[in-house]
Amino acid sequence: MELLDKLNWRYAAKAMNGEKVAEDKIDRIIEAARLAPTSSGLQPFEIFVVKNQEIKEKIKPIAWNQSVITDCSHLLVFAAWDTYTPERINRMFDLTNDIRGFKNEGWENYRKMLLDMYPQRDAEENFNHAAKQAYIAFSHSIIAAAFEGVDATPLEGFDPASVDEILGLREKGLRSAVLLPLGYRKTEEDWLVNLVKVRNSTEDLVTVIE
Amino acid sequence: MELLDKLNWRYAAKAMNGEKVAEDKIDRIIEAARLAPTSSGLQPFEIFVVKNQEIKEKIKPIAWNQSVITDCSHLLVFAAWDTYTPERINRMFDLTNDIRGFKNEGWENYRKMLLDMYPQRDAEENFNHAAKQAYIAFSHSIIAAAFEGVDATPLEGFDPASVDEILGLREKGLRSAVLLPLGYRKTEEDWLVNLVKVRNSTEDLVTVIE
Repeated sequence: MELLDKLNWRYAAKAMNGEKVAEDKIDRIIEAARLAPTSSGLQPFEIFVVKNQEIKEKIKPIAWNQSVITDCSHLLVFAAWDTYTPERINRMFDLTNDIRGFKNEGWENYRKMLLDMYPQRDAEENFNHAAKQAYIAFSHSIIAAAFEGVDATPLEGFDPASVDEILGLREKGLRSAVLLPLGYRKTEEDWLVNLVKVRNSTEDLVTVIE
Repeated sequence: MELLDKLNWRYAAKAMNGEKVAEDKIDRIIEAARLAPTSSGLQPFEIFVVKNQEIKEKIKPIAWNQSVITDCSHLLVFAAWDTYTPERINRMFDLTNDIRGFKNEGWENYRKMLLDMYPQRDAEENFNHAAKQAYIAFSHSIIAAAFEGVDATPLEGFDPASVDEILGLREKGLRSAVLLPLGYRKTEEDWLVNLVKVRNSTEDLVTVIE
């Protein structure tokens, strides 16, 4: 399967060469994230595409000084909703009704159930739930990048509170969840590029219940 | 891009017809999950492939009686580590050294840092972190299913504690994170199959920082 070839090709580039990625490739990498499924279709996140070099320079020191932050072409920041509010839930249900052109009783009952459940929950629990949905989109972008021949480095090693401050996320009701620098590998400076991919064996990872 | 075609094709089937998915397709859907990147390469999850109909029948009532649980061919259960332990961290670092055939000082220092950090953290925080990694793998399987022409229904609507009990996950230090029924859509009984896919517009989802 072509997908498995792409997954075997990709790796988390540890050094990038600063070369710019064409905007049409970036568009498709983001489109994959946009199409990702999310719980109840709420898409509880936003994506920030940092092209500005000064902002990347500000993020680098609060991300263990990883060079890919500044040597990437585009830095994607997946930022999840800080909580679920009635407004946010209603907006997505209204959007669904608008796009589909009708109201449905079952769907409206489902909206009520979420409105009765999510906004009352602890904000941290809601953020964790929203962040998982952001991870689904993030994964879609990782795979899309591989299809585009673009290197992508999944990156959790950063201080979320500082990224939130640099990008003004909290004021928008968002919290940074995970980063994805996109660019091109700098082979000669990347300690990881020639190392074998390490994964658990299928036997250790998978249990079949016949 | 072929990937975007597949993402537009897929949807969360709400009714499946009981037809079995060929095992080689299942193997590739799981291989995609196995190849997924995870934080520090720890792969902090396991995948349970439920083919047993009685077990599926037991899970259905604690998953809102959703018919796809029993009408799917294979039910994937992504179960994340309940916490990070020194044994689990050491096992993956040792596996890496074994596979790559050498020890590296930087890598060993990184191991020490994780050993000093993760096991001391709250188990719930660790589980949430591990579950996010499971979501990356889960997303890879969703996309792989689309490439195989197999329907996959991302499913969070279940009682995790009950699934843990049915599958005996807690004794293994695991907690169920998310389900993925795999099978084939039953078009005539699926209310969702002919509805337009609803997503936020790119304008609403994405902010470019030039």
